[in-house]
Order: sequence, then structure tokens, then C-alpha cells
Amino acid sequence: VVGSGDDAAVVERAGLAVTSVDALVEEVHFRIPPFTPAQAGAKALATALSDLAAMGARPSEAYVQLGLPERFEDEALAIADGLAVVAAACGVVIAGGDVTRSRTLFLAVTAVGSAAAEPGVVRRGGARDGDAIAITGEVGGAAAGLMLLERPALGAGLDPSVAERLRTRQLEPRPRLAAGEALARAGASAMIDVSDGVAADAAHLAEASGVAARIEVELVPRQVGVDELATAAGIEAVELALGGGEDYELLVTIAPEHFDAATAALASIGETLTAIGSIGPGRGVELSEAGARRGEIAGFDQLAGRPTPGPG
Amino acid sequence: VVGSGDDAAVVERAGLAVTSVDALVEEVHFRIPPFTPAQAGAKALATALSDLAAMGARPSEAYVQLGLPERFEDEALAIADGLAVVAAACGVVIAGGDVTRSRTLFLAVTAVGSAAAEPGVVRRGGARDGDAIAITGEVGGAAAGLMLLERPALGAGLDPSVAERLRTRQLEPRPRLAAGEALARAGASAMIDVSDGVAADAAHLAEASGVAARIEVELVPRQVGVDELATAAGIEAVELALGGGEDYELLVTIAPEHFDAATAALASIGETLTAIGSIGPGRGVELSEAGARRGEIAGFDQLAGRPTPGPG
Repeated sequence: VVGSGDDAAVVERAGLAVTSVDALVEEVHFRIPPFTPAQAGAKALATALSDLAAMGARPSEAYVQLGLPERFEDEALAIADGLAVVAAACGVVIAGGDVTRSRTLFLAVTAVGSAAAEPGVVRRGGARDGDAIAITGEVGGAAAGLMLLERPALGAGLDPSVAERLRTRQLEPRPRLAAGEALARAGASAMIDVSDGVAADAAHLAEASGVAARIEVELVPRQVGVDELATAAGIEAVELALGGGEDYELLVTIAPEHFDAATAALASIGETLTAIGSIGPGRGVELSEAGARRGEIAGFDQLAGRPTPGPG
Repeated sequence: VVGSGDDAAVVERAGLAVTSVDALVEEVHFRIPPFTPAQAGAKALATALSDLAAMGARPSEAYVQLGLPERFEDEALAIADGLAVVAAACGVVIAGGDVTRSRTLFLAVTAVGSAAAEPGVVRRGGARDGDAIAITGEVGGAAAGLMLLERPALGAGLDPSVAERLRTRQLEPRPRLAAGEALARAGASAMIDVSDGVAADAAHLAEASGVAARIEVELVPRQVGVDELATAAGIEAVELALGGGEDYELLVTIAPEHFDAATAALASIGETLTAIGSIGPGRGVELSEAGARRGEIAGFDQLAGRPTPGPG
């Protein structure tokens, strides 16, 4: 109704309003380069929208607060272009914003969307004993891409187009909005987007639900090139797939009787769903490999592009 | 419905949703000290809510993104306390948030509220030829308070309680929410909150409305102590009152036939409304003093606490 330029934006709204806030900060979440200013803008909006995807909500508007250092003054339009590209791709209107001087570049995004009363939103805390735990798409690519950006020599043995797709996965993430809505309609009991890593985000979901998540690490689908990159870096591929994060796939739990319908619903929009384990009684995340329990998986430093010393 | 801790907050909503975003950045908008961490948090929320007041909207939730340098890690709770005090005073729920590491302390606030379809929201662009232009409360205090904080010697001749109220005006601003709603109901044609200064904000309102704002500078009500402080600093009191900003009073235009009812509505909630001029054909802001046209009024450096070389 009223867009940016006035004191506030005004939107007509009915039903459940779903709001997510996310901030990306230079030297904490990204560096320019390897990110271009446009990619930094795009990623800030994509990650905020990913939180709505994980609720099964449909985004409608976003509000952006840009903290702009003087040295990036000439890049403000490029940052706005990056935001606009993601907004257009996701059917979102940038309804308001605020640019302020700051010594550190930051992008604080508020994404607003809606969910129908039925099926409502999918929360983190709805997983039940006996549910399957599954993931959309493939993971590990964003972490592998960051390693490649920070240490290009690691990619010497990779097909150039495979390497490019890994870098793009890091630099230009896309929220899984259609998948999130489809999974909500298909009866997902709990959902979270993979920002910190499959292992860490499964732990968040398990904690919120009061259950244990049992994951067979070899079942977690890995993006093409992740295995080769891991070998070149002297780490395990499952460290990238479960520890890496920033893939923005959806980690979802669903009752076994709904699983095939959910898979079919995703297939109809060109997305995949892969079962990686099950929910049981207890607490935390239990990882197994070749039928045996295995230890924790390291987290990933999402600025430096290396596994961290501690668990994910 | 769903608060912080999940991927997004969920709120049931009907009617017009009014959303405002505002970011406060350390060393750009405030310094600690003189601000305490709690006052920085409180001011960030108060200034975001002030934008809703200026639309005549009633706030319901706020979302806060905190960029927290390591050196302020021990102050995170104090910042949250400051936010909570303003939230409670204004009937607002902090429905979501995000804390991230940052080299610069920043608080990016998204405030969400609602307005009834009738009278709807009051925009900046509705001022009409013949309207009165008026202001709530008194101004100049926030700028005088900042000057006192930066140069305490200027307050040597001030009553201590007067000086304290000037400093508090700067450090603990309060949004004029009840006044905004009352003015919307009373038929305000345009409204803006005084953040940049009466002269600069009148220019924003005039530009959005395609009219000229004629202001008699002596009519602009000045907080007690502003005149003495200006004398001590060797500047004109009207420079603080019209150039100062950050008082977060409401500058409003209203048809003359509605003016007395608006004044009475504000009086009933303990607020004052003072006519300071009128809207006419043309563009921009025309200032007059003792019946004669006067030149532009300097702006105010809201970090250093001094008038700027340029116009407000």
C-alpha cells in the first residue's frame, strides 16, 4: 500500500504473518572478494528467505538495513542489484530499507511472508519418535566451494564446470521456497534449513523436539565434486557434507506413511528428497557409518573455509 | 503464535500491517559512553517505534538484529534490558532476533504494527494548501543534551535538574505513540517524526506533499534550558530547536477546522500541540522570524553535538 520513502511500509495482511531476521556482516560471514558486492546483497536476502522456506511459508516482502562503509560507497547500487535479483526470483518486494554509515559493511534483512492456517507453519520442534529424517537436494557444496575460493590449488584435479558449481553454491545460495511449501503440505512434522551444517542443524531440530536424530552419514547426498575436493584437502567428504553448512537445503522430519507422497511432491517441482535416518527417543544426534556408531563431526569455519577444531 | 528460537516468528494478523526498519550504529549514531549499553538498546527500539508513531500506527512486535563486537560481549544482557524496558513501556513484544559477531556495534530494529482501515495511516505526502503545521511537545532538548554530554562546562549556569532533563532527552528518547494515534484519528493530513530536526523534517514533509511549509521560528516550542544552553554555546536557540533533531516529537499538518479538536485530543492524553506555521503553494520550507523571512538554519552533528556548517 505504501512503499519505501515514508516513515514505514504498509501492507494489507490476513492470516499468519511469518517474519525472519538475518544479518550478514563483512569479515564475519563473508569477505569482498571473493564475494562481489552484488553476491553479498543476494546472499543476505537468500539466507533470510531460507528461514521462511524452513517454516513452509511463502515470502512477500523484505526490509533491508544496509550499514555502508565509505570505502563501499560506490558499491551501494551493486549491492541493491544483488538484492533485487533474488527478490525478483523469489517473488518478494523490497518494501522498505535504511542505509546508514558504518565502519563495517552489514546487511540486516527482515523477511515477511505468510502461511495458510492449514497446514500452518512447520516448526523445529515437531519431530516425533518413528519419523523419517530426510534432506532436500545435495550438501557439502557450499563448504567445498569456500575451500576452493580460499585455496584454488585444491581444485587442480577438478573438472572446471564442477569447480564452478561448487563456488557458485557458496557465492549464490538460493532458498528452497517451493520445496518448503511442498513439504509443509505433504505433512512435514519438523523442518530447519541447513545453515550451520547437517549435524549441527539436526541437533537444533532434535533439541527443539525433545528427541534423538539418528543419521547414517553415508546416506547424506553429496554434491558432485565434494568427494574429490575432500580428498585433495586431506579430509573426509562427510565432514563437508555434515559439518559444512550454508547449503540452505531443508532438513525435514516426516512420518513414514507420508514419505513417498512428499518425495513425489518434490519430484513434481524438480527437487529431490533423500532419507538419511530416523527419529528415536533420547536426545541429540547419533551418527552411524557402515552400521557402526561414529564420533562427532567437526564444524566448519564459514569465513576461512576450513574445518574447525570443535564439533559442528 | 511462535516466538524467537524457531526459524521465524509467526503472528496472526488482520488489516494494515505497518513496518519500519531503523539501524543505530556505534560511532555513527551514538557513542558508549556517554550512552550506556542499555540506553543504546532502548534508543534503537524507540527510534524504530517513532516511525510507527509518525504513521499513526500501533506497534505490536519488534525484531532486533544485534551486531556485537567482542569488547561488548559482557554488555549483551544490558542491551537486551534496554530494549525490554522500551518494549514493555510501549506494549511491544520482541518477537525475534539475531545476534551476530561484528567489529562495529549495531542494532537493526524492525518494528511492526497495525492501523485500522479507518482512519488508515498518515503519510508524509498528504499536506494541503491551507493546512496548519504543528508540533507535539517541545524540541531542542535532545541536541542541547548532547552538547552538554560532550561539553559539560556549557551547563555551568543551568539548574541541575534542567540539565539532567536535557541529557535524558538525548539518552532516553520516547516515541510519541499515543499522540500519533490521536492525531491520526483527529484528521491529521501528513505527519513525520522529528529525527533530523524540525527544519529538515518539514522539508521532507513538504517535498513528499508537493507544497511549501511556512514556519515562524519563534513559535517552535523549546524545551526548558535550551535557550540558556544556546547562549552559553554562543549559538541561537532556534538553531537547536529547528536544526537539532532527535527529539522524536511529531510534526503534523491538519486542516484548520480540525485543529482545536486535535489539540483537545492531545490534551486528554497529557500531550500538547503547538501551531508553528502553515502550508501554502510552492516548494520547500520558508522560515520567518518577527514577520520577516530568515535564512536557512544549520543542521546538527548528532554524534559530535555541534551545529554543522550546512543547512539542516
